[in-house]
Amino acid sequence: MKNFLLAGASALMIAAPVAATADEGMWLPSQTGAIAEDMKAAGLELDAKTLGDLNRPPLTAIASLGGCSAAFLSPQGLVATNHHCVAGSLQYNSSPENDYLTNGFLAKTLGDELPAAPGSRVYVIEDLRDVTTAMLKGADKLEGRARYDRLQANRTALIEACEKQANRRCDVRAYFGGAQYWLQQQLEIKDVRLVYAPAAGVGNFGGEKDNWMWPRHTGDFSFYRAYVAPDGSSADFSKDNVPFKPKAFLPIAKTGVKEGDFIMVAGFPGTTERLRTAEEARFEFAELLPYQQRMLAEYGDLIDALTAGNQAATIAYAATLQGVENYEKKIAGQLAGADAISLIEKKQAEEAAFRAWIAADPKREAQYGAALAELDRLIAEENAEALADARRGMLGRSQMLGAATRLYRWANEQAKPEKDREPGYQPRDKAFFVQSMQRIERRYVSEIEQAIWADALEEYRQLAPEDRNQSFDAYMESRDIASLYAATQLGDTATRMAWMDKPVAEFRASNDPFIQLAVAMYDEGLANEAEAKERSGTVQKARSKVMQARLAYAAAQGKTMYPDANGSLRFTYGKVTGKAVDGQIWTPFTTAEGIVAKHTGRGEFDAPDTMIKLIKAKDYGQYASPELGTLPVDFMSTVDITNGNSGSSTLNARGEFVGLAFDGTIEGVVSDWMYDPAINRTIHVDSRFMLWTMEKVDGATRLLEEMGVAAE
Amino acid sequence: MKNFLLAGASALMIAAPVAATADEGMWLPSQTGAIAEDMKAAGLELDAKTLGDLNRPPLTAIASLGGCSAAFLSPQGLVATNHHCVAGSLQYNSSPENDYLTNGFLAKTLGDELPAAPGSRVYVIEDLRDVTTAMLKGADKLEGRARYDRLQANRTALIEACEKQANRRCDVRAYFGGAQYWLQQQLEIKDVRLVYAPAAGVGNFGGEKDNWMWPRHTGDFSFYRAYVAPDGSSADFSKDNVPFKPKAFLPIAKTGVKEGDFIMVAGFPGTTERLRTAEEARFEFAELLPYQQRMLAEYGDLIDALTAGNQAATIAYAATLQGVENYEKKIAGQLAGADAISLIEKKQAEEAAFRAWIAADPKREAQYGAALAELDRLIAEENAEALADARRGMLGRSQMLGAATRLYRWANEQAKPEKDREPGYQPRDKAFFVQSMQRIERRYVSEIEQAIWADALEEYRQLAPEDRNQSFDAYMESRDIASLYAATQLGDTATRMAWMDKPVAEFRASNDPFIQLAVAMYDEGLANEAEAKERSGTVQKARSKVMQARLAYAAAQGKTMYPDANGSLRFTYGKVTGKAVDGQIWTPFTTAEGIVAKHTGRGEFDAPDTMIKLIKAKDYGQYASPELGTLPVDFMSTVDITNGNSGSSTLNARGEFVGLAFDGTIEGVVSDWMYDPAINRTIHVDSRFMLWTMEKVDGATRLLEEMGVAAE
Repeated sequence: MKNFLLAGASALMIAAPVAATADEGMWLPSQTGAIAEDMKAAGLELDAKTLGDLNRPPLTAIASLGGCSAAFLSPQGLVATNHHCVAGSLQYNSSPENDYLTNGFLAKTLGDELPAAPGSRVYVIEDLRDVTTAMLKGADKLEGRARYDRLQANRTALIEACEKQANRRCDVRAYFGGAQYWLQQQLEIKDVRLVYAPAAGVGNFGGEKDNWMWPRHTGDFSFYRAYVAPDGSSADFSKDNVPFKPKAFLPIAKTGVKEGDFIMVAGFPGTTERLRTAEEARFEFAELLPYQQRMLAEYGDLIDALTAGNQAATIAYAATLQGVENYEKKIAGQLAGADAISLIEKKQAEEAAFRAWIAADPKREAQYGAALAELDRLIAEENAEALADARRGMLGRSQMLGAATRLYRWANEQAKPEKDREPGYQPRDKAFFVQSMQRIERRYVSEIEQAIWADALEEYRQLAPEDRNQSFDAYMESRDIASLYAATQLGDTATRMAWMDKPVAEFRASNDPFIQLAVAMYDEGLANEAEAKERSGTVQKARSKVMQARLAYAAAQGKTMYPDANGSLRFTYGKVTGKAVDGQIWTPFTTAEGIVAKHTGRGEFDAPDTMIKLIKAKDYGQYASPELGTLPVDFMSTVDITNGNSGSSTLNARGEFVGLAFDGTIEGVVSDWMYDPAINRTIHVDSRFMLWTMEKVDGATRLLEEMGVAAE
Repeated sequence: MKNFLLAGASALMIAAPVAATADEGMWLPSQTGAIAEDMKAAGLELDAKTLGDLNRPPLTAIASLGGCSAAFLSPQGLVATNHHCVAGSLQYNSSPENDYLTNGFLAKTLGDELPAAPGSRVYVIEDLRDVTTAMLKGADKLEGRARYDRLQANRTALIEACEKQANRRCDVRAYFGGAQYWLQQQLEIKDVRLVYAPAAGVGNFGGEKDNWMWPRHTGDFSFYRAYVAPDGSSADFSKDNVPFKPKAFLPIAKTGVKEGDFIMVAGFPGTTERLRTAEEARFEFAELLPYQQRMLAEYGDLIDALTAGNQAATIAYAATLQGVENYEKKIAGQLAGADAISLIEKKQAEEAAFRAWIAADPKREAQYGAALAELDRLIAEENAEALADARRGMLGRSQMLGAATRLYRWANEQAKPEKDREPGYQPRDKAFFVQSMQRIERRYVSEIEQAIWADALEEYRQLAPEDRNQSFDAYMESRDIASLYAATQLGDTATRMAWMDKPVAEFRASNDPFIQLAVAMYDEGLANEAEAKERSGTVQKARSKVMQARLAYAAAQGKTMYPDANGSLRFTYGKVTGKAVDGQIWTPFTTAEGIVAKHTGRGEFDAPDTMIKLIKAKDYGQYASPELGTLPVDFMSTVDITNGNSGSSTLNARGEFVGLAFDGTIEGVVSDWMYDPAINRTIHVDSRFMLWTMEKVDGATRLLEEMGVAAE
């Protein structure tokens, strides 16, 4: 192991790991022309100007799974994505006899490929066009709820028109805080099948323990296949369907990446907040997150104290405590990251310069000044509301109230036509809903919850009376916590399950105190949702105007701005590189030997025996990296991604497949607000590890041939 | 945080972390003259020839706690050691109101210093002299048990003569497999008091989770004080006692260490096996450890399977499973390490060269040939016996049999005069013995243990009948596991505790099947011990002769050999340096910011609030490292230590105190068999972190003044 590590070390010495290159940016495909020179300088060997063309490779090979990203790797519709993106389908197809989630799954032939979980889709991007004018039509003069409703109506009209084309799924999203709207049109493929997934001991190796960590050894990859009707049109599952032929597929790189290499990722990042104002950033990092952190710390301490010496209670609240600690870890990471990169100060300096630029010109002042002041005012309101919201959220620490609230909502939503039901209350959500209701039985001890809720209500009651939930306060006026818990039947799982099938009227007639409370609070909840829509319309107006000013400001400086992530297709590029942290320098590749070092044969570190044997025998075939002298597993890079990019193919400078992005590191979680190349790292599974696992561990030669990889 | 990490990175690039320097060696003090040139070349600024003089500093400042190492840091008998070396005394002095183990302890004045746990001692090294001739007197012609007994008699005579001096503790240990014997004479100080220990959130920060890991942030340091009678003689605790005035104390270095610095450690390493033959190494790493690994893996899987879905059983067996996994981790580390450094092959090559050297000269062949052949034969026997032993050890997986066996042994030992009782069965061991009997109640579920034992017995019964425990087989002939468990009362804690006070006769009359089994197996157990002594005498004779040959072989090559660690005083030197591992380069220092990053406020990562605040404020006073730009916490080096070195002071090139050694890294656990500078790392707590914690976090200014450190 010594030599290749030394090689890694020397390489690192040449390529300083924290060199501040401009690897930031989740670019729209239409922007690749504007950043062509930068990409070329960074190492891109393709023509950057046509890289963003939705009708050419590589973009014609890019797909979305809705929530995860993906890409075609063969002319037969083979789709590569992350293991964690297909976990639902593995679970759906698993039985005690065939535990695919644990043991992995490989379809021997096309005919053995299994239907993915209901609702699984492959979306193929076809168009992304600016519809700002159509969206804002008639909204100019409107305010508040009226504006919100008009925008919604315009959006619905645009989507309906687009979806008149058969089998198309269209969305209209806000860009630059509503200064622009783009319509994204995708082909919707409804027959998706599970082709191959390695064992959980590969695809989820390291589990929660290694989440956000480096060094990482997760083989987070799997394969679906898109199927269509024999005539090529999208169709529901049928045994007569045939593999979809994508316009393009990504070629597998003949040689993998090495340290310093240019790479790029095209995928569907979910949400970032980088264009928020300095005041919003300050509020988030100086007020809201510290408040949440304090609440979580107190919650964790309380659970510790309440369960100490009580084994059953310790077990029952272990998952809750784990959740608290994971969330604390994330917030601590965000706050530490913000501190390390002086986020608030940088934001304030940027904003001051921007405002000075507006103030310097009476015309600009006239054009944007009022919107700026209005946005300031609205943000001050929203921040106050957010803190009150967080305090009101303490009510949710009662699992009994939570269950009652969701059960009553379920009943109300079931009364609506299927298409009008809110997300989370649709037929496809039922299994998950049932699970969440069952799970309570393992996580609930009445006396403990009463103590937790008493503590939470103390925090809640620090709100001014007018900020509290009026219907909650009214209901509780004549009651106390103990009486609610003494009378409720919701602690019983069968009772909870039975409520899932009851109509609204039965809830209204119930004498279970938590059901009564949920019913009592329902209307106020809906009113709050309506109020939020009202505010949304008002904020959209001011924010979109201010964002126009920021775009103008950037243009005046000759800079190209990219919009915040919003689930639409984006490009990002960067390079393969490590970074320095406390007591360590992270070198950019992990290697197969590291799997053996972590492997315990149990729990989260349980690689397949075959894999361990192959590694011990150093049987790496054609897949070893010449630079490392062994098989790479994961690598890290500076590419700029977030949730939703999971499963994104990673391409080299020639647009060839070299791996899949699947995670970031804890130090980088602040990147949703501000990217810093010294802090931010993306973790990818290396294509060589994928191919080696497919060939040597799982014998997936059928797929390798399809992908044009000649096994030895 | 960026700049200092970069500084660290640059420094690393200059000093390659895996440069193969000759940092191996646990040298006898008398050997420092022989390695003087090497130490000077490595950076020692003192005179290496006098460094090993037991009557001069720094050795007059070195102390042992028996099991841990220590040193005097003030003229008033202040003793620095690891936090984990004083944990017993913290626990002994703790009460629910004053939980010193958790919260730390600081005596405000001399008068507030608390007696350490009973049996605590400070040993001050006074002499270490070769007694080979006296030890072997009359043993020359003897074999087997007779030889063993003669050696024991000579040893006892030497120790008794030495201990005629008041308050001396003497031991005679074998060096070079019995080719030499040395007598170590120490002043025994019996009044030992607890002076200062930081909170567990400092002294044990990271706990089991960080054990053997890097980056590490444990502040593993604490202070005792040695007290003597007003006349300076060693005495039992008395309030009239006064602080002991050591002949020397270690001065605190004005500046801490930096990457690449020479450091040395003087302490009392426990056991290493580096002089074992190639065949012994091969057997250990190719047979015994893999067998143990397989047994542990099956044991872990079995516990998993038996407790799955049973919360009470899961809890009850969690500690056992944790123990299994820690042991597995260590074995896996040893095997991976042996593999990485090609231990077996290197050993075999070395041994082949050694044997060729003997074979090349008829005189040498005549002198050593027979002993070599005899040792080979004995080792083959011992190896076979060791595998059978491991299988017989499976009987011990019954906690009921284990408890019965130890209770009966306890009764037998109590019947002897106190001085003749075996270690583990003396008055000082009673508290621990009681605890171990109580603990079973939290770790025992009868049905689970029956299944575990059934599995263990299946493995045991693969032994040839003559290799089995005859008395066990005889007792079990007419019984089965279920009947034993159905009838035993030992599952009841009160019953177990009651047996502690019963005489041997009552055991013999018992109708509890496990007590009966323990009684039935007792004589065979004693016979086995006697047989082991017999073998020991025989092996000692052959091994000591072969070791003479190896010493001659080394001398012929102009090399100095050091003996295996055996608990006596040793010197080791090396340098402060990181190392490359999978996916990372470990830089040699961790920093205070890393504590904040790991701190969760709970469990094993719960640093004191004051400390966290000080770190956030970067209030490092005079203790920041100029190279790092922040406060160092722990550092790693190539010095060659093992168990028993815990608490050893770390000295710089001028013999000044720069920290305390407290752990190694998992990759290095193979070093008990073979040291490799690419693999082996020792972890030290940095003196600057100690002093900063004392001054800023805990306000231990009294101690700092005593140590000559001027607080700001």
